[in-house]
Amino acid sequence: MKKRRILVVGGLAAGPSAAAKAVRINPKVEVTLFEAAETVSYGICEAPYAIAGIIQEERTLVAYTPEQLHEKKGINVKILHYVEKIVPSQHKLLVRNLRNHSVDEYEYDKLILATGSKPRCLNLENENARNVFHLSSREDTLNILNFIRIEKPTKAVIIGGGYIGMEISEALRTRAMEVTIIHRHRLPMAGLELDTRERIAEELEKNQVQFVTNAAVQGLVTGNGGKVQHVVTNRGTFEADLIILSLGVEPNAAVARDAKIRTGSFGGILTDERQQTNVDDIYAAGDCCEVKNIVTGKPMYLPLATIASRAAWVAGENAAGGRATFKGAIRAIAVKIFGLEVAQVGLSTEEAKSAKFSVVTEVVTAYAKVSIMPNAQKVTVKLILDQRSNRLLGANVYGGDGAVLRANTLGVAIQQKLTIDDIVRLDLIYSPPFAPLWDPILVAANQAQKKLDRS
Amino acid sequence: MKKRRILVVGGLAAGPSAAAKAVRINPKVEVTLFEAAETVSYGICEAPYAIAGIIQEERTLVAYTPEQLHEKKGINVKILHYVEKIVPSQHKLLVRNLRNHSVDEYEYDKLILATGSKPRCLNLENENARNVFHLSSREDTLNILNFIRIEKPTKAVIIGGGYIGMEISEALRTRAMEVTIIHRHRLPMAGLELDTRERIAEELEKNQVQFVTNAAVQGLVTGNGGKVQHVVTNRGTFEADLIILSLGVEPNAAVARDAKIRTGSFGGILTDERQQTNVDDIYAAGDCCEVKNIVTGKPMYLPLATIASRAAWVAGENAAGGRATFKGAIRAIAVKIFGLEVAQVGLSTEEAKSAKFSVVTEVVTAYAKVSIMPNAQKVTVKLILDQRSNRLLGANVYGGDGAVLRANTLGVAIQQKLTIDDIVRLDLIYSPPFAPLWDPILVAANQAQKKLDRS
Repeated sequence: MKKRRILVVGGLAAGPSAAAKAVRINPKVEVTLFEAAETVSYGICEAPYAIAGIIQEERTLVAYTPEQLHEKKGINVKILHYVEKIVPSQHKLLVRNLRNHSVDEYEYDKLILATGSKPRCLNLENENARNVFHLSSREDTLNILNFIRIEKPTKAVIIGGGYIGMEISEALRTRAMEVTIIHRHRLPMAGLELDTRERIAEELEKNQVQFVTNAAVQGLVTGNGGKVQHVVTNRGTFEADLIILSLGVEPNAAVARDAKIRTGSFGGILTDERQQTNVDDIYAAGDCCEVKNIVTGKPMYLPLATIASRAAWVAGENAAGGRATFKGAIRAIAVKIFGLEVAQVGLSTEEAKSAKFSVVTEVVTAYAKVSIMPNAQKVTVKLILDQRSNRLLGANVYGGDGAVLRANTLGVAIQQKLTIDDIVRLDLIYSPPFAPLWDPILVAANQAQKKLDRS
Repeated sequence: MKKRRILVVGGLAAGPSAAAKAVRINPKVEVTLFEAAETVSYGICEAPYAIAGIIQEERTLVAYTPEQLHEKKGINVKILHYVEKIVPSQHKLLVRNLRNHSVDEYEYDKLILATGSKPRCLNLENENARNVFHLSSREDTLNILNFIRIEKPTKAVIIGGGYIGMEISEALRTRAMEVTIIHRHRLPMAGLELDTRERIAEELEKNQVQFVTNAAVQGLVTGNGGKVQHVVTNRGTFEADLIILSLGVEPNAAVARDAKIRTGSFGGILTDERQQTNVDDIYAAGDCCEVKNIVTGKPMYLPLATIASRAAWVAGENAAGGRATFKGAIRAIAVKIFGLEVAQVGLSTEEAKSAKFSVVTEVVTAYAKVSIMPNAQKVTVKLILDQRSNRLLGANVYGGDGAVLRANTLGVAIQQKLTIDDIVRLDLIYSPPFAPLWDPILVAANQAQKKLDRS
């Protein structure tokens, strides 16, 4: 019997996961994965820690080489192969071999798209100068590390004050560089609550990161040696030896769109719960896709490795003949910013309002362990609730001592649609080194319940 | 109009909580609290840390003095008052003033019993020698601290290898004493899973605590100055300067039993969800009570401050005319044993079997954060599941890095009766400094799901 041919496009994270799952589920499939770059299975989320030097060996970020994927997972891997076109009517791909520029055809029974995301650009002259970097591939990581090693930059400008901007600013401060973040809003990390963002701005300042607010980049001015020397903005001009662009990412879905695969309002591929696209025999997973927000029931764009992995397993299993489903995500994210733990689960106040919930919020700052224990730190819990259903819709948790892991507990509450009455009844641990008699979660919930009762 | 008279018996933890809640709910009550000792509102759970010297000021364990309870919370407090008898038919108490030994009568409209627990004894001669201590009151803490300060003991014997035995052994090692634990079983901390208990035994050994297994104390032999010098057991004789008895506690419910208040098979007072006893107008809360185990639906004895506080609020609110309920607890406990975090939520394997569940367990050890991050530690997650319903019934989590806070996430799953299919779908945080792509909870859940599918 002929084996079922599964082709996978994209090798960074979701691709290898989907491919490995397909082989695991059904040994009677033949899986070939195409990747345009040289590296597959790369831990891009750990890259800031490699750049900081906290992870000393960058190569440990490579989970599997192409050879290992073949030997250990049974996947045929073709690196430096760029998929130019999908022809659904003929169940085939046109793939350019970047080594010799030939284009070959590959037929599939099932196709899995895991084309990932691409970093947003400034669209300014000199954006490709040799001291200007994105951070979205192994090549980027290696280039930044090489540049730091050889050119020993002392002044870094980070353009974009989101998630990656935060991590990179800490990484470069760890290397004792002067760090400036140029950001288009008043506060870093849009999407978090205002008070959380203010606390983050404070943490940046405390750690000597210059945060330039409400700034638009107008030009990148080169000096000697083809390097950008000045970043010109409406808020002043900033000298730089090293520039990192962290402007966010967008779905890399052009090849899918060309094949009439449906994309959503965020530009990501739309799939059903089985990760199937609107086109027969084509699945998609990872950062090229939109994902269902479990709280609103609507699609969102949230390029996270957790979501990519789960969706990839489902795509791989189904492409191999299984029947798996991925029900969506609540959004569960965290970031360490110097001494500050920051986590968000579920909806923001703004999102909850847009989704027509009747929003009530409560913020509480409380000790994360028994206050008289040495080094007791505080955490702040902000709960975002719906007044009609009394359900928890979202939360921010920030501070020290287990702020992030506490967010997971609230995440479960959000995912399981618990009401405030359920949450105040949660039986949480009290143990002096770990948590006070009333965990900050319960302190916040008790306060929120009173507010909901009054309103 | 005459104020509603609420009398409260017991001032350690549940009593003051119940009293304060009653006043808060209804300013038209007059609340009087009786305590036989001198101290009220004492943080006995923090006592091991005061004994270790980690909390330097023991007096910070006193949350409120009697005067503060009066001024800030509006409670009349009578310390050194011992309640000898409840006369329900006349709605009155007979109370002995321990200062002058007079007995007075006090009438109540509503009565709240918060008589707490009492430590178990060996019932051996010399058990009251001046270097033999329990740890269940402020007096005990102060006596131990004084003894250490003045007599500078170097050899400590702890009798009983439970929860408190663990904390005290660490406290005394922190003070550089030689520490021996005499325990009647092969492994410490009955109630936890076997593998957890083995790991704890290993941690004790690693920290030079001598753990004497399967040992029964046969005698306490005194030497000079009325101090016990040797602890004689069937497993040898152990020299001691300082002896701590940590044999567990039992409900202090004699005065309730004498008044025909119903107690359960563990000897604790039985109440309904409103914390009402079988006798009209008498409520009870805290360590003198049994509590409903939410997982089995049956009463258990679990003297924890979290349960005491919740039950106390409910008793206080209802005694003051409110309508609050306390639905029970899952059991959520944690302890730090030197470098080891240990937590238990829900049922043990043994309890689950006794409750006629069809038990399947899964144990997984996995990194608590991204493995290539510096100082990444592992945690072990043991899940206890019911094969028929696929529900999670209990879990042990131990190791480093957030083992305890992870247990809370599983605790919510237990309390909300999640099945393994719900748990594998939980959207948990991935962030290199805090958690790997697949949190150990999910690794364990994925494994458990496969096992349940096969069985």
